[in-house]
Amino acid sequence: MNANDKFIAATAHVDAAAIAPLPNSRKIYVEGSRPDIRVPMREIAQSDTPASFGAEQNPPIFVYDCSGPYSDPQARIDIRSGLPALRQQWIEERGDTEVLSGLSSEFGRQRAADEALDELRFPGLHRKPRRARAGANVTQMHYARRGIITPEMEFVAIRENLNREQYIASLRASGGLKGRKMADMMLRQHPGQSFGASLPAMITPEFVRSEVARGRAIIPNNINHPESEPMIIGRNFLTKINANIGNSAVTSSIAEEVDKMTWSIRWGGDTVMDLSTGKNIHETREWIIRNSPVPIGTVPIYQALEKVNGKAEDLTWEIFRDTLIEQAEQGVDYFTIHAGVLLRYVPLTANRMTGIVSRGGSIMAKWCLAHHKESFLYTHFEDICEIMKAYDVAFSLGDGLRPGSIYDANDEAQLGELKTLGELTAIAWKHDVQTIIEGPGHVPLQLIKENMDLQLEHCKEAPFYTLGPLTTDIAPGYDHITSGIGAATIGWYGTAMLCYVTPKEHLGLPNKQDVKEGIITYKLAAHAADLAKGHPGAQIRDNALSKARFEFRWEDQFNLGLDPDKAKDFHDETLPKDSAKVAHFCSMCGPHFCSMKITQDVRDFAAAQGIGETEALQKGMEVKAVEFVESGAEVYRNV
Amino acid sequence: MNANDKFIAATAHVDAAAIAPLPNSRKIYVEGSRPDIRVPMREIAQSDTPASFGAEQNPPIFVYDCSGPYSDPQARIDIRSGLPALRQQWIEERGDTEVLSGLSSEFGRQRAADEALDELRFPGLHRKPRRARAGANVTQMHYARRGIITPEMEFVAIRENLNREQYIASLRASGGLKGRKMADMMLRQHPGQSFGASLPAMITPEFVRSEVARGRAIIPNNINHPESEPMIIGRNFLTKINANIGNSAVTSSIAEEVDKMTWSIRWGGDTVMDLSTGKNIHETREWIIRNSPVPIGTVPIYQALEKVNGKAEDLTWEIFRDTLIEQAEQGVDYFTIHAGVLLRYVPLTANRMTGIVSRGGSIMAKWCLAHHKESFLYTHFEDICEIMKAYDVAFSLGDGLRPGSIYDANDEAQLGELKTLGELTAIAWKHDVQTIIEGPGHVPLQLIKENMDLQLEHCKEAPFYTLGPLTTDIAPGYDHITSGIGAATIGWYGTAMLCYVTPKEHLGLPNKQDVKEGIITYKLAAHAADLAKGHPGAQIRDNALSKARFEFRWEDQFNLGLDPDKAKDFHDETLPKDSAKVAHFCSMCGPHFCSMKITQDVRDFAAAQGIGETEALQKGMEVKAVEFVESGAEVYRNV
Repeated sequence: MNANDKFIAATAHVDAAAIAPLPNSRKIYVEGSRPDIRVPMREIAQSDTPASFGAEQNPPIFVYDCSGPYSDPQARIDIRSGLPALRQQWIEERGDTEVLSGLSSEFGRQRAADEALDELRFPGLHRKPRRARAGANVTQMHYARRGIITPEMEFVAIRENLNREQYIASLRASGGLKGRKMADMMLRQHPGQSFGASLPAMITPEFVRSEVARGRAIIPNNINHPESEPMIIGRNFLTKINANIGNSAVTSSIAEEVDKMTWSIRWGGDTVMDLSTGKNIHETREWIIRNSPVPIGTVPIYQALEKVNGKAEDLTWEIFRDTLIEQAEQGVDYFTIHAGVLLRYVPLTANRMTGIVSRGGSIMAKWCLAHHKESFLYTHFEDICEIMKAYDVAFSLGDGLRPGSIYDANDEAQLGELKTLGELTAIAWKHDVQTIIEGPGHVPLQLIKENMDLQLEHCKEAPFYTLGPLTTDIAPGYDHITSGIGAATIGWYGTAMLCYVTPKEHLGLPNKQDVKEGIITYKLAAHAADLAKGHPGAQIRDNALSKARFEFRWEDQFNLGLDPDKAKDFHDETLPKDSAKVAHFCSMCGPHFCSMKITQDVRDFAAAQGIGETEALQKGMEVKAVEFVESGAEVYRNV
Repeated sequence: MNANDKFIAATAHVDAAAIAPLPNSRKIYVEGSRPDIRVPMREIAQSDTPASFGAEQNPPIFVYDCSGPYSDPQARIDIRSGLPALRQQWIEERGDTEVLSGLSSEFGRQRAADEALDELRFPGLHRKPRRARAGANVTQMHYARRGIITPEMEFVAIRENLNREQYIASLRASGGLKGRKMADMMLRQHPGQSFGASLPAMITPEFVRSEVARGRAIIPNNINHPESEPMIIGRNFLTKINANIGNSAVTSSIAEEVDKMTWSIRWGGDTVMDLSTGKNIHETREWIIRNSPVPIGTVPIYQALEKVNGKAEDLTWEIFRDTLIEQAEQGVDYFTIHAGVLLRYVPLTANRMTGIVSRGGSIMAKWCLAHHKESFLYTHFEDICEIMKAYDVAFSLGDGLRPGSIYDANDEAQLGELKTLGELTAIAWKHDVQTIIEGPGHVPLQLIKENMDLQLEHCKEAPFYTLGPLTTDIAPGYDHITSGIGAATIGWYGTAMLCYVTPKEHLGLPNKQDVKEGIITYKLAAHAADLAKGHPGAQIRDNALSKARFEFRWEDQFNLGLDPDKAKDFHDETLPKDSAKVAHFCSMCGPHFCSMKITQDVRDFAAAQGIGETEALQKGMEVKAVEFVESGAEVYRNV
């Protein structure tokens, strides 16, 4: 859809590309302790090993699946109706919320009453907003601290384990010496270097609860977004990624943004931030939330600024408060709030190379200077906490003074604000409000560790959520890569969620292609970080893909990768025939000599020479730097 | 040109895309101690700072330029003639070489006599091959160890300094407090973490000599490739990148490969490896070398294997020796030789996930097993040294047992071979033969440091030259990025040259677009490494680009980047008008509110509030983690 076409709610439809099945994949659900805990995963089937390599059966592997019902052929998808409210029952059962008679925010009511908006309004919401009963606190952190394991916590525990138990069982089922050997091989993994992370072999619901209770992880989970599938952000869990979407005053439409959301989750976006700054922000967000199975984040000050026609100094606590409530009742799961931009830090940015590059940060800086006082985000921070805990919206404490260039990295302004964010975290935690901390930005490789360490220290291990960081400024057009390098590095050091950067960074608004490029880059960076930390089971997918590669199972190699479509297209560019998909060669070396094929000859030869498999296996076992990922496989069922 | 079109030498022409001027750029030459030392660089002009930001003049910056005469509008380019032999005089002056009456290799003579090849043969070579006089050693290492500073060494010293003296002088020339302040700012740089590298403030010819003498750097520099512009590979110099090209038996043609070479150097390939394995390898290589201003590397065993119709076990020392001489007399600058694949290491690979993935490695493994003895590469290693020193071909000791999957990283086979490569390095150095060491492959982030440290230890700081490494196996189609992450990391730790990986890795033969994507990814990774090591002056380009970005000098931002074309295209996708190039906003935030613009308001406001520039500057100066890059600017002229 062109940005200039008029968006009409009645004719809105899901992007066909977002619901196309992924090759050889099947949506499965792992059931928890009650039938309505159904945790989605993607099962990727594999073909058998060719006879020349030993004719083994390769069990399917299970991968994390953010795509929600869109990838379920059983689901009826109509974006005009939105997704089913799968958490509704859990929320109701707790009995600590009430259904309101209508919207609490004045702006929300105005928009609802505006008939001119009927044509583009999301038509599918038939329930009223929900809020904590007076005096109640409905955050997952609050429950966790009272020792309650919620269905949401059990859901994420199952989700994080990726059905590894089943995979291990299938591997073992093949039986015999050969089967056991293959299983051992497929489950081996290099020990990680975790920099102090605590990574249990299997994630239990109790572990989830304890991590949420101590603030080391969050489950972004607004009670008004019951359509969302619970997920967790914390350094002791799989590294997550966020995709930013959103229209601007210059370009894009509601349909495009919904398409970007469904496209993002298809490729693995764990959360999506709607950063819209253009027209119809409220309505755009409604369409996104109602159709999103992943948590949605926003920067509420962006919308508040639109309400005062872009004049930062005209912002007031009342306008901001109304915006928070408006968005909380729509179901936004986390708010970026730049409450750490203090008056005393602002002059520290005057001699930076690129000043203040955070949009929220500069709005607040301008407000502070105009009013000669600390911002209402800071002075009303506890009032904000009251709103957050009434809906379970999580804080994403914004780094308004993040460096926008290598030059400005780790400067006094940035590190001063980080310390303040640590103080605000303590206040949020006093209210049992879930909190993550945003980080930079542009940081050269050698300064990333310091940044991570200071964050862990000042913010007491509250999850770090970083934008990249970009490790050089000199490659506009390739900043998904300059930042992917920094993202993998800081993820390794302990960052819990990586905010993607697209190739369009600094240059323009990303389109769907850019969104995909950004997501895949960040998925691989997050995975590189998980491998490096030694996240249990992280290497299973690498092992499976490499085995497929070695055995010339081309289709399996494509399907086990992050982007089967592109892998297949690239292969087919030079060898398009179907026969090439089973050929024991590729276009790099051609059919006459293939190093992978020769390796098999070497194996056969070695075996014939009496260098038997057992001896060779023994040798392999002695190699340092490998360990098994199987221990503890039975744990989480027992909790 | 389509791969199936017939290549005709008489109609061969340079790729128009390879000689198009880069925007706002000018080819300059910095002259050395004699008029024929003319070191090429690219000067990128900048526009003035807009009045609202202070109306400063921004002097041009100088960047490393691998593109040779192709980017010089004064040069007459005809790929049928080849490039001028700029080093001819230097080689002749040394008086230690002789011009041969004809080709020494039997295969070379056969090809020369084959009239069927006339049609596609390179027509422009009118000189005879050159070789060291009997008993002479013509390597740069040999000269260096005798205390001789060659013109080649002076050339690379000037080249590495990137005309920084001139840039600093231009910055200072603006004068006054404001000018001095700007100069201070543009020259500040974060201190690096160099892991034991020795990075002088300015590179002198004597420093180059001493590094080459102790084996810590090489200048690949075959006397039969006098067309090449000297460059240096060593951990104490700018991190270099290599681009692999080459046809295969399945696809590609001579014209395509020459186009890939000129395309590679345009975007920054420091060396190019011709890995052809298909038809007409000899003639393809001749076209590439005669037209290449950068050193060319090959893997001679590939061609030797073609000579025995792909049967590894039929390879002999005599065939290999003839191939080395054939290629040495064409002008290949470095040879990958897998002499470390010892018989005892081969069985260690039998239980790997992906066995032996190095093509050269598996050829030699197969040979070793077939003959039950060590390979002729190992047993004739000193004979090979004799050939290398007669032409100044450098060793690139191949890692035939590099890991092809995360699973196989840092295993006994790989690390055993690395130790043997260290022993072979000592032998090469005994002959004063320049040597670099090839490295992996697939290695997760947490194991890269160990790999680098062992290389430095075993190979006594001989330059490390790594392929990536890929930090995960799960992203076929994106392995330029999985490996770019590893490349930046290992470059930071001390790798001297990074061999690029394209998006087609594992899937197919890269086309021109893939080559560019691989090169830019590796240029930015190498630069991220230089910044992280604290390479003097590395941050100049980042500072300049970020200043342009902050001041909304859009064209300058594009032009200072690694890929001006893509940056401009991306920008124009959303805001195509020329007026947008001077607009103080972009499509991300739109015209109503821009965080960069607000920063200027903050500056003005801060100034008006009495938070003056001096005080702010003072604050800025106190910030830790910055240093000046100016010291020593005068040094190299004085040698």
